[in-house]
Amino acid sequence: MITVLAGGIGAAKFLEGLAAVMPPEEITVIANTGDDAVFYGLRVSPDMDTVLYTLAGVVNRETGWGLAADTFHCLRAMERLGEATWFQLGDRDIATHLYRTRRLREGATLSEVTRELGDRFGVRCRILPRILPMSDDAAPTRLRTSAGWLSFQEYFVKLGQEPEVLEVDLSAAARSQPAPGVIEAILISNGVIVAPSNPIISIGPILSVPGIREALRKTPARVAAISPIVGGKALKGPADRMLASLGYGSSAAAVAELYRDFVDLFVLDQQDAALQSEVENKGMRAIVTQTIMDSAEAKRSLAATTLQALQEIRDQSAGRGGAGRAR
Amino acid sequence: MITVLAGGIGAAKFLEGLAAVMPPEEITVIANTGDDAVFYGLRVSPDMDTVLYTLAGVVNRETGWGLAADTFHCLRAMERLGEATWFQLGDRDIATHLYRTRRLREGATLSEVTRELGDRFGVRCRILPRILPMSDDAAPTRLRTSAGWLSFQEYFVKLGQEPEVLEVDLSAAARSQPAPGVIEAILISNGVIVAPSNPIISIGPILSVPGIREALRKTPARVAAISPIVGGKALKGPADRMLASLGYGSSAAAVAELYRDFVDLFVLDQQDAALQSEVENKGMRAIVTQTIMDSAEAKRSLAATTLQALQEIRDQSAGRGGAGRAR
Repeated sequence: MITVLAGGIGAAKFLEGLAAVMPPEEITVIANTGDDAVFYGLRVSPDMDTVLYTLAGVVNRETGWGLAADTFHCLRAMERLGEATWFQLGDRDIATHLYRTRRLREGATLSEVTRELGDRFGVRCRILPRILPMSDDAAPTRLRTSAGWLSFQEYFVKLGQEPEVLEVDLSAAARSQPAPGVIEAILISNGVIVAPSNPIISIGPILSVPGIREALRKTPARVAAISPIVGGKALKGPADRMLASLGYGSSAAAVAELYRDFVDLFVLDQQDAALQSEVENKGMRAIVTQTIMDSAEAKRSLAATTLQALQEIRDQSAGRGGAGRAR
Repeated sequence: MITVLAGGIGAAKFLEGLAAVMPPEEITVIANTGDDAVFYGLRVSPDMDTVLYTLAGVVNRETGWGLAADTFHCLRAMERLGEATWFQLGDRDIATHLYRTRRLREGATLSEVTRELGDRFGVRCRILPRILPMSDDAAPTRLRTSAGWLSFQEYFVKLGQEPEVLEVDLSAAARSQPAPGVIEAILISNGVIVAPSNPIISIGPILSVPGIREALRKTPARVAAISPIVGGKALKGPADRMLASLGYGSSAAAVAELYRDFVDLFVLDQQDAALQSEVENKGMRAIVTQTIMDSAEAKRSLAATTLQALQEIRDQSAGRGGAGRAR
C-alpha cells in the first residue's frame, strides 16, 4: 500500500501516473483541505475535487481543475443577482458541492462524504484510490500578504496570486484532528510519497495537522518527496515566489530542507541535477529524473521511478538492519 | 393599490395582464408558499418564483415555470451522483435558490429575501409588483392521497398529480403567522383580487394563515375572484379533479362557494355564462368574460374587465352608503 500526500493539480497528475503503474485500490491519498471554502453556502474542497475528478477521468484537461466540458450558466445567473463570481463553479461541479454540503448538514463527516463521492464517481469509471481529507475539521489556511490578510481562495483565485505572501497562518490546521485513517495510512503503508505540490500551502497544512508530521518521522515506511520546483521555478502556481518571499529560497533544495526531518528520498528534475549532492548532504537520498509530467508516459515514468527508488532504499535499509534515515 | 392573492402559473399570467393596465408598483402580490420545498438543501419557492420570473419577463414561456432557455447540466450531474431528480431545477434557476438558501441561513426572513430577489430581477427588467410570501414561517401543504400521505411536490411533480386527493392538510399554514405587510395589504388596498389559481392548494394555504381570511372579510376594499375552472375543467393542473374528489363538485360555482364569505365579485368564463345566476344567488356579483389567457391582449382584457367591475361595485356601494357584500 502506498500513501500519497496531495495538494491539487500537480498531485492529481502524479496520482494518475501512480494509478497506472500499481493497483489504484492500493493507493491512499491524504488530501489538503486548507483551501476549502464556502461559496453561496456551498462547501467546496478544491484540492480533493481536483484529485477526484482527475482520477475518475472526468477532469477538465485544459485547466486541470473542474469537470470536462462543464458550463457556467448558474455562475452567470449569480452574477446577474449581484453576487461575487470570481470563484469558477461549473454547473456540473455544483452538483458535487450541493451533495457535499447537504451531507455535511445532515451530520456526515468530510471523510464520509469524500468516500461517498469517490464511490459515486468511481463506480462509473474505474476503481479509485481511497481519498482521505487531512482532517474532518475546518482548517482554513490564511495568508498575510502585501494586500493584507486573505483567505486562501481570495489570494489564490480572486487576486490571482499577485500579492506577496509574508506569512502563512496554519493555526486552524494545527488545532484540527487528523481524519480517521490518516495516521494509520502513514504508519502501515509500504511507502509514503509527498506529491509535487506547493510545500507551503498544499503540503504545509497537512503537515500541520497534529500527529501527521510525527507519523511521517516514525513510520517504518520509507518516505519520498517529489520536488514541485524545477530550475528554481514552480511549474504552476506561486510556490517559487512564496518560498522566496518567506525566506526559504526558491530552489528544489529549499523544498528538501522543509521536508528534511521525515524524507528518505527526494526526487529532483533533470534540470536540477547539480543540486543532487546539496540535497544528499541533508541526509536523504536524491535521485534525478524527468519530473515534468507533460504526457501520460511522463506521469507513469515518474511514478514508476519513484516507486522503484523507494523499493531500493527499503531493500538497502533492510540489508543494513533497518538503519536508513538521518534522524 | 391592488392586492392579488396568487398561486403559480395562472396567477402569474393574470398578473402580467394586470401590470400592463395599471402601474406595476401599485400591485402587491400575496403568494402561496405551501408548495415550497427543499431539494439538495436548496430552499425552493415554486409559486413565488413563477410569479417573479413571469413579471420580470424571464420565465420559460413554454412551461410557464422556470427560466427561459435554462439548461439542466447540474441536475444531470446530480442524477449521475445517484440523487433523485424528479424536480426540475435549471442551472440558472439554481442561482435563485442558492441565493435564497444562503440569505435564509444568514437569518433573513423569506419576505426580505423575496424583496431582494424582486429588486435584483426588477432593476434589470422593469418596476416589479411587490411580492409578499403569505408567511415567513414554513407552511408546507401535505396531501392524503390514494398513494398515501405526500408532500405537495411529491404529489404535484414526482407523481404527476395522478393520485386521487382525499384530504388536504393545511395545518402548518394554520399555525403560521402572516408575513409583515400581508394583512395591511388586504386592509388598505383599493381592491383585492383572488387570481385564477387552484382554490384548494394554491389559494387554500393563503386563506389558512391566521388573520388573512378575516382581513378579506372585513377589508373596506371590494374583493374579486377569477374562476380557475372553465366549463367544469381546470385549464391547467388538477383543480377540477381535486374539487371533485374532495366533494365540492368541479364547477366554477363550487369555487365561488369556497370564497363565499369574502368575495364581492366573481369572474366567470363565457363558457360558464349559465352559472351566473347560481353564483349571484350566493350573495356576490358575477360577471362573464373571457378568462382564458391565451394572448397578451386576453391577459390585459381580463385584468381590465376585473378592475372595472371592482370599480363599479365600489361606486355603487358608495352610492348605497357602503352596503355591499352579503355578509
